[in-house]
Amino acid sequence: MIYETVAAVDLGSNSFRLQVGRVVDDQIYPLDSLKEPVRLASGLTEDKLLDAPSQERALSALRRFGERLRGLDRGAVRAVATNTLRVAKNVGEFLPHAEEALGFPIEVIAGREEARLIYIGASHSLPSANYKRLVVDIGGGSTEFIIGKRHDPQLMESLYMGCVSFTLKYFPGGRIDKRRLREAQAAAAKEIELIAHDFQKLGWKEAVGSSGSARAIADILEMNELNPGNVGGITREGLERLCALLVKAGSAENLDLKGVKGDRMPVLPGGIAIMAAIFEELDIDCMTYADGALRLGVLYDLLGRFHQHDMRDATVAHFRKRYQVERDQVERVEAVALSALTQLSGGAPGEADIQYLSWACRLHEIGISVAHNAYHKHGAYILTYADMPGFSKKDQARLALLVLGHRGKLEKLAEVPAADGVWRLIFCLRLAVALHRTRDDRQLPAWRVASTERGFMLSLPDKWLAKNPWTAAALAEESLIWKQIGRECVVRALD
Amino acid sequence: MIYETVAAVDLGSNSFRLQVGRVVDDQIYPLDSLKEPVRLASGLTEDKLLDAPSQERALSALRRFGERLRGLDRGAVRAVATNTLRVAKNVGEFLPHAEEALGFPIEVIAGREEARLIYIGASHSLPSANYKRLVVDIGGGSTEFIIGKRHDPQLMESLYMGCVSFTLKYFPGGRIDKRRLREAQAAAAKEIELIAHDFQKLGWKEAVGSSGSARAIADILEMNELNPGNVGGITREGLERLCALLVKAGSAENLDLKGVKGDRMPVLPGGIAIMAAIFEELDIDCMTYADGALRLGVLYDLLGRFHQHDMRDATVAHFRKRYQVERDQVERVEAVALSALTQLSGGAPGEADIQYLSWACRLHEIGISVAHNAYHKHGAYILTYADMPGFSKKDQARLALLVLGHRGKLEKLAEVPAADGVWRLIFCLRLAVALHRTRDDRQLPAWRVASTERGFMLSLPDKWLAKNPWTAAALAEESLIWKQIGRECVVRALD
Repeated sequence: MIYETVAAVDLGSNSFRLQVGRVVDDQIYPLDSLKEPVRLASGLTEDKLLDAPSQERALSALRRFGERLRGLDRGAVRAVATNTLRVAKNVGEFLPHAEEALGFPIEVIAGREEARLIYIGASHSLPSANYKRLVVDIGGGSTEFIIGKRHDPQLMESLYMGCVSFTLKYFPGGRIDKRRLREAQAAAAKEIELIAHDFQKLGWKEAVGSSGSARAIADILEMNELNPGNVGGITREGLERLCALLVKAGSAENLDLKGVKGDRMPVLPGGIAIMAAIFEELDIDCMTYADGALRLGVLYDLLGRFHQHDMRDATVAHFRKRYQVERDQVERVEAVALSALTQLSGGAPGEADIQYLSWACRLHEIGISVAHNAYHKHGAYILTYADMPGFSKKDQARLALLVLGHRGKLEKLAEVPAADGVWRLIFCLRLAVALHRTRDDRQLPAWRVASTERGFMLSLPDKWLAKNPWTAAALAEESLIWKQIGRECVVRALD
Repeated sequence: MIYETVAAVDLGSNSFRLQVGRVVDDQIYPLDSLKEPVRLASGLTEDKLLDAPSQERALSALRRFGERLRGLDRGAVRAVATNTLRVAKNVGEFLPHAEEALGFPIEVIAGREEARLIYIGASHSLPSANYKRLVVDIGGGSTEFIIGKRHDPQLMESLYMGCVSFTLKYFPGGRIDKRRLREAQAAAAKEIELIAHDFQKLGWKEAVGSSGSARAIADILEMNELNPGNVGGITREGLERLCALLVKAGSAENLDLKGVKGDRMPVLPGGIAIMAAIFEELDIDCMTYADGALRLGVLYDLLGRFHQHDMRDATVAHFRKRYQVERDQVERVEAVALSALTQLSGGAPGEADIQYLSWACRLHEIGISVAHNAYHKHGAYILTYADMPGFSKKDQARLALLVLGHRGKLEKLAEVPAADGVWRLIFCLRLAVALHRTRDDRQLPAWRVASTERGFMLSLPDKWLAKNPWTAAALAEESLIWKQIGRECVVRALD
């Protein structure tokens, strides 16, 4: 059975979430997402019973989700509950009420299953890679660790520590000092020690954080420029600085930093302590971030088919269709652009350059779907804001830059450093678009490009230029445009 | 024969233009447009011969156009030449070269035919109306006057006066003083007198300017707030102020006003003098502006079929398809929104309110084509920048406002005055979206809306709210959102 709309409900220890997705071919595009800060873990009594107020919060959240899910087929929805319901002793009484409120069955899943689903979600939201990744997900009540390659998880563990439970235990009342932080970190380190050996033995190339805690920490480090060299994600140095600031502030509330969000604040200290322990025990220097892992994993698992090829290619192909891009023109432009790149790279362009240039060629006209006038700006807008499975926001920004720069003046790219390799890609794309602006199957003459000290040089036959005065005018204009930003694009007419 | 792509070439006395359009059902969407400031009229010698330099400028422009048109079917292209080539005595020698350069036949059309095409173009770029319109097109060498209704021109005249020829004759070297301006205006008035009686006898309700001169004058008046009450378009008072400023400056170059564009400057004085005479002789108080009349008219004439219904409805229908808007949801939302509007208008809502609300309902989800997250912003972006045949930029801005305001906080609409009737439409749309957020065929209970002193009140059964907690939460949120902007949306639960 193939569904058009699928939904995942995640009854987490910190918040409950509902993600509704639209299925397009083998991909899932977000349609609706709801979040309720239920903080179930904080309602767990010392003898592991879910107290009445937290049950009530949970049930009202589920009733609201239930209204949204009404009418969806049973097979199109999967609801999973994680650590707090795993450990709550009165789950047997609570669950029937919860299922009635939601209108769908709820599975309390084991830590390993949670880890598996997290990995599937993370691997679908990251660029495909040939190497092993470590994915770490700090939840409200448990933390999952997975090493995998492509969409296959190879080693999975779930530890009984989370940002809600740790904050409650080690930072009562939200107060933070050096001793408390050290204690929390030591407790987390003791847990991680149990699995560290196996994980380090299998090894990984890239570490990825996939939960709200990782997102919050990365945001704070990036927005306050706490990472050395202002790199993105979470770095060891950035994390150390954040810990020091947290101790100095005495509480998350007093932390005078950009990006500290109200709903994350109450559980931030526990999350930071656990993350610091992970960095130390697993000897991590930096970590990137992946969005919405568990819910996305549930949705792809529900779909029952994974992308074995690069998700980004599928996304680009889907966008060509969605925005009705003219295929013939793309093929002409792509052929010229890639040939120019090859010439400029001494015959051996880098894999990433080829990919980005090729995607940009396929996407450069998507903005025409809005209006022909200034369509490069509309294309850049779409690439900036669209949901593009497999692409990170940073990837999308780079594609948007290429599309924005593919025509018109170049002053708008003033903030791109002169040494950035993206200029070469922009030149290749602009050249290809200029040579094929007639949008017909014209035969191009023999043309060559080369790098010069301040830019690029294009050579092509004088005769051909004379026969194609519109293109000749465009190339003359191109020279001017590059000159205006202090670079050059020399057009040499050969006999 | 139905073409996918059609093109119009306009060999005007001031500039040559090429417009390529894509045919979608009965509508034409711009694909490419080129402009070459050839200034053919200034190359006309006293004995009405086109001089060699102007012929050369014309031929190189046509060669560039020709490269763009290569591969297009002969029947899909129409090239028309207007006044300067009508009067040039050596047109017989020039034309074969021009046709060779372009690669397509060129028709030198009579003033009446020009007037007919201008009217067809203008009527396709304006909202459909039941009343008569006067369209005035000040060209480089001639000025056309047409009265028509819908797409039918009823009275057409072409006068031998234009912005290029008048500027050359009355403002040699660009110098302007009171006497010269008076002379130019008197000369134009003398021409207009010949037709004034017939035009005033037939009468019209709305005056529309459709050329580059009208556009330039309207832009200057609007950007420098020269119109009384800052209305748009061209007003009699604004025009008088502009004339006074022009005389004071002594030349268009010295005119220290925003919006005076470099390529329009050389022919602005003649255009202003003619426009002032038109206002006086035809007793006009204000004039709106319509885009690209002649070329658009050629394209629609080429297509051979006109929209007899409202072009705006066709555009909205096309957008629903292009952006894959879910039809069922639109219908649900539209039914509730229009019912709310009827209730709030005492049973008799205005025609324009119904139209805008209904269009906004049909378009409110187009932004989902970009991303679900913040889709109202993406929708507003598209409506702001898209080519929307039949809608003026002002219409589009109003639709964009409705779509932007249909969900989320209302602070973003802070600059909309509290008394603006658009708030009522926004309330109706938001209510409809809130009541149908489950996107299913739910049965709504009996609900009523009413206006209150500071906003609106919604009444609906308590029981229904209890059964639909997600919607209830949304309505509670809605109350808060209106409160945040100092207005109210009271939700009254009835037994």
